[in-house]
Amino acid sequence: MTIPSIVPVDRAVADEARRRIDRLTKPPRSLGRIEDLAVRLTAIRGALPTGGYPRRTIIIAAGDHGVVEDGVSAYPPEVTAQMVGGFLAGHAAINAFARAVGAAVYVADLGVRSAGGGGPFFIDANVGRGTRNLAREAALGDDDTVKRALEAGGNVLLEALRRSPCDVLALGEMGIGNTTSAAAIIAALTARPVREVVGRGTGIDDEGVARKVAAIERGLARCAARDWITVAREVGGYEIVGLAGMILAASSLRLPIVLDGVVVGAAALLAHAIAPASIAYCIAAHRSREPGHAVALAHLELEPLLDLDLRLGEASGAALALPLIEAAGRMISEMLTFEEAGVATSEERPVSGRS
Amino acid sequence: MTIPSIVPVDRAVADEARRRIDRLTKPPRSLGRIEDLAVRLTAIRGALPTGGYPRRTIIIAAGDHGVVEDGVSAYPPEVTAQMVGGFLAGHAAINAFARAVGAAVYVADLGVRSAGGGGPFFIDANVGRGTRNLAREAALGDDDTVKRALEAGGNVLLEALRRSPCDVLALGEMGIGNTTSAAAIIAALTARPVREVVGRGTGIDDEGVARKVAAIERGLARCAARDWITVAREVGGYEIVGLAGMILAASSLRLPIVLDGVVVGAAALLAHAIAPASIAYCIAAHRSREPGHAVALAHLELEPLLDLDLRLGEASGAALALPLIEAAGRMISEMLTFEEAGVATSEERPVSGRS
Repeated sequence: MTIPSIVPVDRAVADEARRRIDRLTKPPRSLGRIEDLAVRLTAIRGALPTGGYPRRTIIIAAGDHGVVEDGVSAYPPEVTAQMVGGFLAGHAAINAFARAVGAAVYVADLGVRSAGGGGPFFIDANVGRGTRNLAREAALGDDDTVKRALEAGGNVLLEALRRSPCDVLALGEMGIGNTTSAAAIIAALTARPVREVVGRGTGIDDEGVARKVAAIERGLARCAARDWITVAREVGGYEIVGLAGMILAASSLRLPIVLDGVVVGAAALLAHAIAPASIAYCIAAHRSREPGHAVALAHLELEPLLDLDLRLGEASGAALALPLIEAAGRMISEMLTFEEAGVATSEERPVSGRS
Repeated sequence: MTIPSIVPVDRAVADEARRRIDRLTKPPRSLGRIEDLAVRLTAIRGALPTGGYPRRTIIIAAGDHGVVEDGVSAYPPEVTAQMVGGFLAGHAAINAFARAVGAAVYVADLGVRSAGGGGPFFIDANVGRGTRNLAREAALGDDDTVKRALEAGGNVLLEALRRSPCDVLALGEMGIGNTTSAAAIIAALTARPVREVVGRGTGIDDEGVARKVAAIERGLARCAARDWITVAREVGGYEIVGLAGMILAASSLRLPIVLDGVVVGAAALLAHAIAPASIAYCIAAHRSREPGHAVALAHLELEPLLDLDLRLGEASGAALALPLIEAAGRMISEMLTFEEAGVATSEERPVSGRS
């Protein structure tokens, strides 16, 4: 397994970006979070101005989870493969959203139970036909399999880039049962109680939540060491580890990475544990309704852009944040300063002191 | 003055939209606010499915305010005309955002102090060269002028539509001093204390806020009757009354209207007072940092989509919400139901009971 080398984002150019934004024709800081986003994008690109982000790629990593046999999901496991078919046919939520924001949608099979999928937007990177039941045994079997899933994720990114060069990446997932695995990873890597990070996923009731908590607690009992590879092996998922591999690979290429919901958040925690510098390349798209998501984002010190009460996955929230990336990139690249535009500034005090 | 006739939005088709959304291939209600938005858009269009909203028009209404002589703004009044020039030249924040979301930007002069502006995206609808100082006298002079400003706004909308037919409208404003007028309108029409609705606008200090409060209180002392025309005449602005006219005209044409920040919120309060049915055609884009905005939205029972700490105006927040409109419209129009897609539903209970 090769961990790609990741350079820290450029703080000096970020400071330069902030100074330019403060001189643009608007009251200082009046574009709030969009200004912060522009600064972050500049640090990622390492150059000012950033320009726009017209080539947008969404990757959905798919995988199945043995823990569904414990009744942790409202849906049967065959839905994972059926939804993969739906993404490739273009009639799922993410397809509608991707068309709305002008993005290509790739679907990568990291660990779907049944083989299937094809066409120019399918990437076969299957590492195993569904994980084992994390409540009973190591979900990914052994450390070698974890490493293969991580590398497979990196290769998915490279293959997607080969097919569609892109300026910004959005990551999402599909996997019946995967909010259970995500909650387990989040509890393990943030040292928070399981109950605090478990949600209703696709829509289970209180008994389902209790089953989910019990399954996770049995899985975590095997994680005396809370290092990333133990956690990934015992309670991980193929698509979640694969997503961590995509984050590492994309950050090594200095691509901005837009993270979707709780499952991608768990993957980001793994990437952070492996290479902390990778997280500075990540942008949290939204705060999902799943409680573990906020916990993961807080641990990573990422503040989400949107809060739309989403809990679907599929990169749906990440897709909706892509126009904000474009707006922030264009704002810093295309706006003029007061001096450049010949607009009068504040009468009361210098612009730099007004924020 | 002709108030256009506004039909209520179609609640029956909204119910039908909700039922279809609940059967699409996703856990019920998992797209949260986007689902609510799709229902609202369907009610506005009066037909299912809505389709997308590819033709997008932003209108920025501009006007000056006599109250600036009381020191209520951090910027000198000539900035209004300078910024109008910036919008038409294409290098302001709204231009960058509009290019990011694929929208045309029209600039309408409703009440700018100095004549100026031209080209295919400028609409001259000037009703007066800046208002009088609302702290001392009726800002718009008399009821007739209020009616002319309202009608001028309606005509601006029709002219923009003539030049660029559109599927969705976003409204914004430019006017040094106009958050003072907006706060006065909001306090008057929601019966809230002035101090609760006054903010820092473009960035004034505590003394500036005190001057703003004092000016508004003097203006409102002349509004014994709090009917819309008294409030508009005494403490209104040309561009704010014009925006109310645009809301009335657009809702009579069943166009979805995306509202920007606090000043457009004040205009929506005027439109609501004139024709309450118009508000069901409005979508609140974002919650601005100005305290009066949340008060206005609560009064109108509108919940904002975004919360990005914006306080710029210029329709900047409204522009950023346009991709969400497109996503919601495409979601309900392009997604398949579980039955149509052949995807298994929940094992536990029927889909309709899982929300």
